[in-house]
Amino acid sequence: MTSLDERTDGTAASRWSTFRPIRTGEDYVESLRGRDLDVYLLGTRIAEPVDHPIIRPSINALKATYDLAITEPDLATAWSRLIDAPVNRFLHLVESPDDLVMKNRMQRRLGQLTGTCFQRCAGLDTISVLHSITYDIDQAHGTAYHQRYLEFMRNAQRNNVVIAAGMTDPKGDRSKRPHEQAEPDLYLRVIRRTDDGLYVRGAKAHMTGGLNAHWICVMPTMNLTRADRDHAVVGIVPTTAEGLTYIYGRQSCDTRALEPGGIDQGNATFGGQEVLVVFDDVFIPWEHVLMDGEYEFAQPMVSRFTAYHRASYVCKTGLGDVMVGAAATIAEYNGADHASHVKDKLVEMTHLNETIYSSAIASSHEAKPLASGIYMNDEMLANVCKHNVTRFPYEIARLAQDLAGGAMVTLPSEQDFSHELTGPMLQKYFAGRADIPVEYRTRMLRLIENMTLGRNAVGYLTESLHGAGSPQAQRIQISRGMDAERKKGYARRLAAIPDTGSTVDEENGAP
Amino acid sequence: MTSLDERTDGTAASRWSTFRPIRTGEDYVESLRGRDLDVYLLGTRIAEPVDHPIIRPSINALKATYDLAITEPDLATAWSRLIDAPVNRFLHLVESPDDLVMKNRMQRRLGQLTGTCFQRCAGLDTISVLHSITYDIDQAHGTAYHQRYLEFMRNAQRNNVVIAAGMTDPKGDRSKRPHEQAEPDLYLRVIRRTDDGLYVRGAKAHMTGGLNAHWICVMPTMNLTRADRDHAVVGIVPTTAEGLTYIYGRQSCDTRALEPGGIDQGNATFGGQEVLVVFDDVFIPWEHVLMDGEYEFAQPMVSRFTAYHRASYVCKTGLGDVMVGAAATIAEYNGADHASHVKDKLVEMTHLNETIYSSAIASSHEAKPLASGIYMNDEMLANVCKHNVTRFPYEIARLAQDLAGGAMVTLPSEQDFSHELTGPMLQKYFAGRADIPVEYRTRMLRLIENMTLGRNAVGYLTESLHGAGSPQAQRIQISRGMDAERKKGYARRLAAIPDTGSTVDEENGAP
Amino acid sequence: MTSLDERTDGTAASRWSTFRPIRTGEDYVESLRGRDLDVYLLGTRIAEPVDHPIIRPSINALKATYDLAITEPDLATAWSRLIDAPVNRFLHLVESPDDLVMKNRMQRRLGQLTGTCFQRCAGLDTISVLHSITYDIDQAHGTAYHQRYLEFMRNAQRNNVVIAAGMTDPKGDRSKRPHEQAEPDLYLRVIRRTDDGLYVRGAKAHMTGGLNAHWICVMPTMNLTRADRDHAVVGIVPTTAEGLTYIYGRQSCDTRALEPGGIDQGNATFGGQEVLVVFDDVFIPWEHVLMDGEYEFAQPMVSRFTAYHRASYVCKTGLGDVMVGAAATIAEYNGADHASHVKDKLVEMTHLNETIYSSAIASSHEAKPLASGIYMNDEMLANVCKHNVTRFPYEIARLAQDLAGGAMVTLPSEQDFSHELTGPMLQKYFAGRADIPVEYRTRMLRLIENMTLGRNAVGYLTESLHGAGSPQAQRIQISRGMDAERKKGYARRLAAIPDTGSTVDEENGAP
Amino acid sequence: MTSLDERTDGTAASRWSTFRPIRTGEDYVESLRGRDLDVYLLGTRIAEPVDHPIIRPSINALKATYDLAITEPDLATAWSRLIDAPVNRFLHLVESPDDLVMKNRMQRRLGQLTGTCFQRCAGLDTISVLHSITYDIDQAHGTAYHQRYLEFMRNAQRNNVVIAAGMTDPKGDRSKRPHEQAEPDLYLRVIRRTDDGLYVRGAKAHMTGGLNAHWICVMPTMNLTRADRDHAVVGIVPTTAEGLTYIYGRQSCDTRALEPGGIDQGNATFGGQEVLVVFDDVFIPWEHVLMDGEYEFAQPMVSRFTAYHRASYVCKTGLGDVMVGAAATIAEYNGADHASHVKDKLVEMTHLNETIYSSAIASSHEAKPLASGIYMNDEMLANVCKHNVTRFPYEIARLAQDLAGGAMVTLPSEQDFSHELTGPMLQKYFAGRADIPVEYRTRMLRLIENMTLGRNAVGYLTESLHGAGSPQAQRIQISRGMDAERKKGYARRLAAIPDTGSTVDEENGAP
Repeated sequence: MTSLDERTDGTAASRWSTFRPIRTGEDYVESLRGRDLDVYLLGTRIAEPVDHPIIRPSINALKATYDLAITEPDLATAWSRLIDAPVNRFLHLVESPDDLVMKNRMQRRLGQLTGTCFQRCAGLDTISVLHSITYDIDQAHGTAYHQRYLEFMRNAQRNNVVIAAGMTDPKGDRSKRPHEQAEPDLYLRVIRRTDDGLYVRGAKAHMTGGLNAHWICVMPTMNLTRADRDHAVVGIVPTTAEGLTYIYGRQSCDTRALEPGGIDQGNATFGGQEVLVVFDDVFIPWEHVLMDGEYEFAQPMVSRFTAYHRASYVCKTGLGDVMVGAAATIAEYNGADHASHVKDKLVEMTHLNETIYSSAIASSHEAKPLASGIYMNDEMLANVCKHNVTRFPYEIARLAQDLAGGAMVTLPSEQDFSHELTGPMLQKYFAGRADIPVEYRTRMLRLIENMTLGRNAVGYLTESLHGAGSPQAQRIQISRGMDAERKKGYARRLAAIPDTGSTVDEENGAP
Repeated sequence: MTSLDERTDGTAASRWSTFRPIRTGEDYVESLRGRDLDVYLLGTRIAEPVDHPIIRPSINALKATYDLAITEPDLATAWSRLIDAPVNRFLHLVESPDDLVMKNRMQRRLGQLTGTCFQRCAGLDTISVLHSITYDIDQAHGTAYHQRYLEFMRNAQRNNVVIAAGMTDPKGDRSKRPHEQAEPDLYLRVIRRTDDGLYVRGAKAHMTGGLNAHWICVMPTMNLTRADRDHAVVGIVPTTAEGLTYIYGRQSCDTRALEPGGIDQGNATFGGQEVLVVFDDVFIPWEHVLMDGEYEFAQPMVSRFTAYHRASYVCKTGLGDVMVGAAATIAEYNGADHASHVKDKLVEMTHLNETIYSSAIASSHEAKPLASGIYMNDEMLANVCKHNVTRFPYEIARLAQDLAGGAMVTLPSEQDFSHELTGPMLQKYFAGRADIPVEYRTRMLRLIENMTLGRNAVGYLTESLHGAGSPQAQRIQISRGMDAERKKGYARRLAAIPDTGSTVDEENGAP
Repeated sequence: MTSLDERTDGTAASRWSTFRPIRTGEDYVESLRGRDLDVYLLGTRIAEPVDHPIIRPSINALKATYDLAITEPDLATAWSRLIDAPVNRFLHLVESPDDLVMKNRMQRRLGQLTGTCFQRCAGLDTISVLHSITYDIDQAHGTAYHQRYLEFMRNAQRNNVVIAAGMTDPKGDRSKRPHEQAEPDLYLRVIRRTDDGLYVRGAKAHMTGGLNAHWICVMPTMNLTRADRDHAVVGIVPTTAEGLTYIYGRQSCDTRALEPGGIDQGNATFGGQEVLVVFDDVFIPWEHVLMDGEYEFAQPMVSRFTAYHRASYVCKTGLGDVMVGAAATIAEYNGADHASHVKDKLVEMTHLNETIYSSAIASSHEAKPLASGIYMNDEMLANVCKHNVTRFPYEIARLAQDLAGGAMVTLPSEQDFSHELTGPMLQKYFAGRADIPVEYRTRMLRLIENMTLGRNAVGYLTESLHGAGSPQAQRIQISRGMDAERKKGYARRLAAIPDTGSTVDEENGAP
Repeated sequence: MTSLDERTDGTAASRWSTFRPIRTGEDYVESLRGRDLDVYLLGTRIAEPVDHPIIRPSINALKATYDLAITEPDLATAWSRLIDAPVNRFLHLVESPDDLVMKNRMQRRLGQLTGTCFQRCAGLDTISVLHSITYDIDQAHGTAYHQRYLEFMRNAQRNNVVIAAGMTDPKGDRSKRPHEQAEPDLYLRVIRRTDDGLYVRGAKAHMTGGLNAHWICVMPTMNLTRADRDHAVVGIVPTTAEGLTYIYGRQSCDTRALEPGGIDQGNATFGGQEVLVVFDDVFIPWEHVLMDGEYEFAQPMVSRFTAYHRASYVCKTGLGDVMVGAAATIAEYNGADHASHVKDKLVEMTHLNETIYSSAIASSHEAKPLASGIYMNDEMLANVCKHNVTRFPYEIARLAQDLAGGAMVTLPSEQDFSHELTGPMLQKYFAGRADIPVEYRTRMLRLIENMTLGRNAVGYLTESLHGAGSPQAQRIQISRGMDAERKKGYARRLAAIPDTGSTVDEENGAP
């Protein structure tokens, strides 16, 4: 590794100079090749992630965001006033509630098409929150972050890049604040400032699609105090920046991608990606620094980011659509689709799925503009949406397993199905309805396994619990926003109890 | 009773001539006086319902819809293009998604203010559905219903009247269609047609606020066939029309309103109202007939009406706000408000309540115009909203009872509290926190009883189950709208199963 | 009232001398007559509660415990070794796990027969706990409580009396201990001791069937400290003792019992009863004092009592059986009993009901003997049983309302059905299946109303929440009994994590 | 393969002659070596399953049933009256309710010790049901099955063998009965009878621990008709019998067992096993045939088997104990164990787990003897137990994932932790509480992954849904046993509706 003082990795301009505008999904895949990143997976450095069978499905999922912009441009592109040209919606600034609703529709659609996490939402929600935060910091401190931000966004839109959100610090001992940790690097921090920029050290955990991005935006993960000032940093670095190491998070059944054949993977084409990214003294030029020490803005940044991001979990309704479809299909293949309890379970799955959808788009429709002119969706409803996401996909998955039947977890391997001796036995004994090939039934069972126990269960279930904040985080936000005092006033009024001196003026609006 | 042939209760014009425009809540109450209706309650004919202690709270609740138009005009009025003047929002034609969202906000607000059913939603949803249905019938049959409808609406808006929805027929033997019933009157029907109009006979069950309305609109309750032609009738009659009898539905704890004092009623001011209205050969002039025999429009009428009306159940979130407030208050009075489980239960109640809210307004925001130009909210999400309403208020009520403590159901009567001997005992032994009068605690407990077991539990719980259709009705609608075939396509695509010849073109839109 | 010094109300012997053995239910009812108690209901002193229409149904319910001993003696009687004769099972000492299981079966049976709270369980659970507690106090302090207790029980069994449990103090400010209250009487306490006995002052809240009992046993409601010593009193007084005042707790729809007719009550025969009993310096002779100052035994007394009593909530499965039966019947009357969703809801109701049953009898079967020789059921499972009781009856009630249909809350009154003008209208329009009289349908709807909103909803729902301790009380007990340390050991062993020095010896038994 | 006519694999005596009594777990493992079975896994014939890394954990789990008999003989052995000697409880005939309760305790204990399915319950439940079924057939048909059965059991007990239950046929087209299938082998059937015995052909699907057993008992999977007579066969064959092929069912994350290291497996020692066993004309001597054509006994056999087996799912409470322990431990490692919501979630997990336990042991305690003298547990409560098992483990697993945090699914591999470059990074950034080694935290996260997404999630979740019958199977049984007619009688009686001629005598017992 080059020593810190010798590094020349550059200016903002030089960093952008390596990019060429990406138009198609294929362009995108090519843009990831030959980057010579330090990527580790299963204990091995991966020379070319693009061609690695475990990694490639996650690239395919992100690629779908480019493909959709071409096949369904009304849904997946928008007109950017910033560059006066159409842009991928994942890079579009939120100019109206409708932009947020369209985002939600696009997210559901991509969930339907990929059955997994397509990894581009957190980046979109990051650029959304930075619009207002940089504006607000400038207003308070006379800084120039907002113009830097807009300049970055012009480049980002023109080049159609992927931005990953680097938010979650490892956190170490949860009972201590950043500056109290024995090891201060457990929260990413500025370790040096020069005329050209600053250097950060630390790590960002479970970064979604970190390896598949072109740029990483680091930002604080929680509210900070003056003593945590050096942790109050927002900056954007290219994924190729010197000092970055990527360690791949493993997933349930990940190595099935290394096996011959494609059936046992369930969804052989698409998958998610979470990586730990270690920042070993990574340089950020001032043009790409959007916060440096303004610690009091960490709290609103996190709060606004989660408002955007918790509604983004509407993507899970796209996966829910796949679950409903898979459950309906396997019931059909099993010859059980006319049973009333089967129909009723499909209705229940749909009801839960649409409840999530309604919370998300309600939040978006109810968006209000912030000072910078950008719109933010309703915070209470975004929390309600995400909180339902921590519950309903588990029940939907349970119902899908119910309709799948036990064979989902006792099915022999694809190799057994193609073996000369066992193959014919399995063809004979796994036959269901005469008009359905055994392989179709097998494939559908493997898809349900994939989404409820396997690789994409990570995204459909566990990530639904913890992504954008664990359940308790939503409960805290709901508690803050519930305005119990106003509601106590309603109750007292109906019970004919005189106002007991509360300072809340019950008449000022509803709900 | 006058014989059918001698009746002279007349023309549309003569019927409207008895009305004067209503402006205030007080105007409204006065408009109900002296009507000499045939009203029966607890086995007695009630000469003046307005002054009856059991009935009055329901009038007060409806009155709140007039008061709100004055205190919060932005919320409760709208500009009518029909008469080019502001109108009460309960009479406003839906010209945009925003009109539906504003309706939902108003409904929640009135729920907060009354803690009960204010009885004007079904009428609004009726006039909404008739706009498009009369238009569509005219298109199909060359009839002139739509102009009649518009003319009626001009009068309705100018006079600011209350319209009750007469939808639910008694139904008799559920396994038989209307024309198959031993007693054909079990579904309201046309028994005679003359040059001036037609006569209907039958009954409409649990008509919400039927007695508190100025007009009743009868309409079919289910899809009909050619053989049911005489049941396919829509018409509007004044509540004072000859031949109408009103039999009051009793409610849990209704007679507490007859007791001295106001504490044990819990909510002494506001209540709901359901009546059985018997139509004993009631005349409707042609100007007020909006369907007569076009049976094939019964199904879309019901379907569109339930789309409007199931989202109207957002009003229960206003009651939910009262429940949250009451539970928070009683916990405070009991000195238990700092316990973590208490706070957590308030969050859960809020989460469930806001989930309902989000489904309703999402449905409204997603409204689309119909052929007549009026907007209709999203049907799937309206069903999802109502289906959540059949579940969550029960859990909210259970949690409120949890926080209330057992005293809610063992509290002595108000008379015992004011009795010279027992009063001081009760003051001594029902003391809680020193700074809270015993009466406040008692009042709050009685309010929770009112909403979970008493009079307004009828509206908050049972009506939430059955109003606008019982749970299974929503499940049927969700089943119809879920488009399982499209979702099967998503699953097959991800499982790499070739298209099996389904005629559904999976690419045509989402979700 | 006689002054304290003049009282002569006596010795234990004189108190028992007024009793004659009760054999039949009729004997029991007669035993309650002419007692001249100070009973207040709706602000009026009730001269003869036995004949009061609101009170009588609660007496009938308790009477059923006597009747059952005659009609089903195997179930409702047992052989008492104490008096070497058969006794009513509600007075039987628990000599084996099977005695507890038989208790549970009897409780369920009485729930089926009465559809309400029959008020004799808390007394049984009180005499059960006093067996071991008096024994343990004697062991620790050399007192003679246990012999006093046995002597009392001999008389109780021979005379076949009803004992009410006086446990719940009013509690005042929940943040303060008994001796810290501004008004020390908010927890019942000894105010004077003489050679003959002691005097207590205070009140016991929501005493189930307090008025229908012959004896009241007062005991502490929570763990106590040395400073609360005077509150650590257990004593038994006849309901006729001087100084007692009974104030009746009102219930939802209670005054329907004052109306003519019997339909609208839903269950006209049976009801529950909760009273506030004020102890205005009530004398207890030493022979009937079973604790006086041994404050350290308050905690085990409460803990053991709740173990017994939380399993006694199995009675609600008897009410659950009635709910299932009522829901099945109304579906039949409505002609909807063949719908698959109807059958499925009945199954769900049954499943929930039997889950409660299984927790209760499992707890009883797993009973272990205490030092005094009496058996106590498993504490963890008793808490699990009660905790399920705080949830499942609400869902069962919701499903019953679902199957009932909306008419349950919009039905006109019985007087309207018998009115000359409205009666025929209602007969016509409330007809369902031709072979079912309208009155049957009405009666069944009123029964469901009674149990889900009306008088017996108090017992089926709210009392299920709070009786024997509110939900959080069970959670605390479950937390205490869950032995997380042992379970951590299981997890560490499977994860191959070395023992980290926990002192728990994982091998010593399971679970 | 030897042709059918040349086979000499013989007599019952010769088959037993190859066994030597098994005493220890080590003996058991040795007994599985060198059997030269036709086992296929991942497309390869496995020469020695005992040493295969994927298979061995399942053998270890079954071995625990032998070990426990030595370490906790009171729990895991019983005195057999059949051979007048102690036997492993998994081979013990059920002589009392207590035998069933002890079985449940042993099952929970083994769940705690292995965290997976130990595969010996279905065999125990099979020998239990065959006791009464062979007796009943003999009574009806004058056959001699029961003595054959007892003789087999004497040998089985003396040799301490493992018996696998071969119940589930592949079933083919679910809308057709066995004899209607295009391919009759889709239900196992007799294809030939000789003087010495009979030959069966077909397959048994998801046979739990099939490969780890010494004997397989085939039996019908559903009720049969006369036309299905050849499918009505019960017989017992050694796992080494000629004509058997075993095809291993793959599980989520199974191949992690092939990776170096032991951390990522989560539970490296124990796992479950499901195999498809193909019967290619397998011989069974008459001594080991226990049903041949008595088709009318298929229904009671299945019904009694499921009564036994559904209560055996109490084993999942042992796994639930591990889940509670793992969740409590990871919360502690994360430093979050003092948060009130964490404690509350552990209580909820425990409550659900103990509810399952109570249903199981209640069912066992309530066992009644059958005609043959063997006891059978309560069928309703067994169904209730299993139905709760189809729901609660999913919620327990969700709560465990909640407490685990997102790192459970983003953790890098063990190889990355031991890599020279990434290892130190991971040690630095995965540090939590200073006193907890990073490896401990990693191990605990992997254990939770193992049980909620990985290999043992198959047993803890999906098998909990489908084993011993899918949810709908329990609902059908609950529906059959719920006796709605009796319950209708309770409701009618309380509503004062005259008996409508039902033939059910409501007085004959309860509940």
